[in-house]
Amino acid sequence: MTMSRFLSQEAERLAPYTPGEQPTDLQYVKLNTNESPFPPSPRVIKAVTRAELLKLNLYSDPTCAALDGAVAAYYELRPENVLTGNGSDEILAFAFRAFCGQGKPVAFADITYSFYHAQTALFGLEKQIVPLREDFSLHVEDYMGFPGTIVIANPNAPTGMAVPRTDIQRLLEADPNRVVIVDEAYVDFGGESCVPMIFRYDNLLVVQTMSKSRSLAGGRVGFALGSPALIDALNRVKYSFNPYNVNRLSIAAGTAAMEDAAYFETCRGAILRNRGWLTGELEALGFTVLPSAANFVFAKSDRVSGGELYRQLKENGVLVRWFDKERIRDYVRITVGSMEQLVSFIDETAKILDAV
Amino acid sequence: MTMSRFLSQEAERLAPYTPGEQPTDLQYVKLNTNESPFPPSPRVIKAVTRAELLKLNLYSDPTCAALDGAVAAYYELRPENVLTGNGSDEILAFAFRAFCGQGKPVAFADITYSFYHAQTALFGLEKQIVPLREDFSLHVEDYMGFPGTIVIANPNAPTGMAVPRTDIQRLLEADPNRVVIVDEAYVDFGGESCVPMIFRYDNLLVVQTMSKSRSLAGGRVGFALGSPALIDALNRVKYSFNPYNVNRLSIAAGTAAMEDAAYFETCRGAILRNRGWLTGELEALGFTVLPSAANFVFAKSDRVSGGELYRQLKENGVLVRWFDKERIRDYVRITVGSMEQLVSFIDETAKILDAV
Repeated sequence: MTMSRFLSQEAERLAPYTPGEQPTDLQYVKLNTNESPFPPSPRVIKAVTRAELLKLNLYSDPTCAALDGAVAAYYELRPENVLTGNGSDEILAFAFRAFCGQGKPVAFADITYSFYHAQTALFGLEKQIVPLREDFSLHVEDYMGFPGTIVIANPNAPTGMAVPRTDIQRLLEADPNRVVIVDEAYVDFGGESCVPMIFRYDNLLVVQTMSKSRSLAGGRVGFALGSPALIDALNRVKYSFNPYNVNRLSIAAGTAAMEDAAYFETCRGAILRNRGWLTGELEALGFTVLPSAANFVFAKSDRVSGGELYRQLKENGVLVRWFDKERIRDYVRITVGSMEQLVSFIDETAKILDAV
Repeated sequence: MTMSRFLSQEAERLAPYTPGEQPTDLQYVKLNTNESPFPPSPRVIKAVTRAELLKLNLYSDPTCAALDGAVAAYYELRPENVLTGNGSDEILAFAFRAFCGQGKPVAFADITYSFYHAQTALFGLEKQIVPLREDFSLHVEDYMGFPGTIVIANPNAPTGMAVPRTDIQRLLEADPNRVVIVDEAYVDFGGESCVPMIFRYDNLLVVQTMSKSRSLAGGRVGFALGSPALIDALNRVKYSFNPYNVNRLSIAAGTAAMEDAAYFETCRGAILRNRGWLTGELEALGFTVLPSAANFVFAKSDRVSGGELYRQLKENGVLVRWFDKERIRDYVRITVGSMEQLVSFIDETAKILDAV
């Protein structure tokens, strides 16, 4: 993007995020942005009624009471433990502003959701990047003395690796005045959620999304779970930024998605099965596959570089995600899609390896 | 909201906005948040198809190409002149970050959309408040030498009063390096839009919304129109904050709303007729009514205070907006609703005045 004479200094220093490709021109086997391969719950389809559409002239409920209520009910929390937003990216931005700033730096891993960099730049935050260990594991000891806010994606992206809940607990207890933000975007696929610790630790903020396990990436619904003090703080930011942040249709869709626990379990079960199959096939092709608790796997081959595999797959109609970044340049990240998608991916990958 | 030990200094200094009441418990004649009394275009209802709902598992297009294209086509602009967002509040936040900061203060009127205060606090901006003249008119001379970014709501809220386009033009020409943000949320109801000046002045950013004249308040679609340099700058902020900021259903709804120019004209025509009737009735009841170019009127009576009228109307099932703020405490703001709503309002108001 062009720099212009109109930009504020702060806007010049931004580090805009590049989302995964969202091609509109071609039909790809799309395994690059960790979407669910399944449509949303049939209840979601029913919830977006003609009657609701006819009310689009009226503002949505700025408190998102129905949606917060459905989330709270699912997790046996109270509505005051919940704040919903326009995707979890928005929630994360609120959290960065609420809990970080002058005298409150932020720490996160070197290999994690790279959007954290964009958001810390947005608020001009001082950040400390804490390298993962050699095997990409996160050791909470490395954060123990950090005098600021800690963000941990658990399971982590793009590695898929999870941290035990008891490790997070140790961080929470080490300094009760320090906020720990646990980004659980992928937790439904095998991680240990920190949600059960919310009543015990008022410095714990859990952020989740309906984009992955609830098939609502296009509906943009994320939520934060935490103590009323933390949720109040997020609301201060929300009401300074965009009070009506979730639209009517997404409130209806998100509420219905949250209420259909059976469909959620069915989809999750399929993803876990498919992940097992995908991992086995990749290993049979000689890939090293990191242990994944997410709806994607992170894998590398000794026979083809990550970049080359990404490019050749794309040429053959399969999109995966490749990060041109130190430490992980050898890997590609593959979303756990439908069996049909995964078979296409494995077949194309086998052909590429054969031709090496 | 409670302050907590977790808050950043920056979050402590926030000034969260209080949106107009959105009661869910009772049926009010709701004339307090400037919504359209008409449902969205029939094309909007058709655009949110079952097929679109079944694709909610896939992310929305982060570039909002279809929506930007529809907006661009309507205004005879190019897509690179357009950025759409999750309501115009989000767009305004992007603009404050993009064009204001250290060395770039922001100026706006004392009586205007009060959300500007919340957003300037969000980014810690230095602001200069420029009082409107005694009669609530805005004189661009009062901004001419201001060395920063200027925000003008045109027509203004809550007064409804408009500034001629040629006045804005003088501001744009006085300093080509200074960005002028014209918030045209209400322009479709009688103001002179600055959109035709976009090709001539690359320092002009126009912000509009589909919440009022296009009956999509609950769909959350706003947009910015300006030179590619300004739109690029907004994109820097968007991609640092929330790349997928407009969901699939709102993209579909907003595109359809923009394409149905005939329905838009019909609704606008009705609002203009109703505003004429409402103004006449209020004047017949002895009210002073400011000249409105918006879908609301701002009016005061010598016989009852603004606060008292607001409270008594609410007790009788009619919601209007009252601002407990210097200079405008005597007034209430009444949305131009349907004739049925306006007759209820006038009847209740007449009763209240009779009882004084």
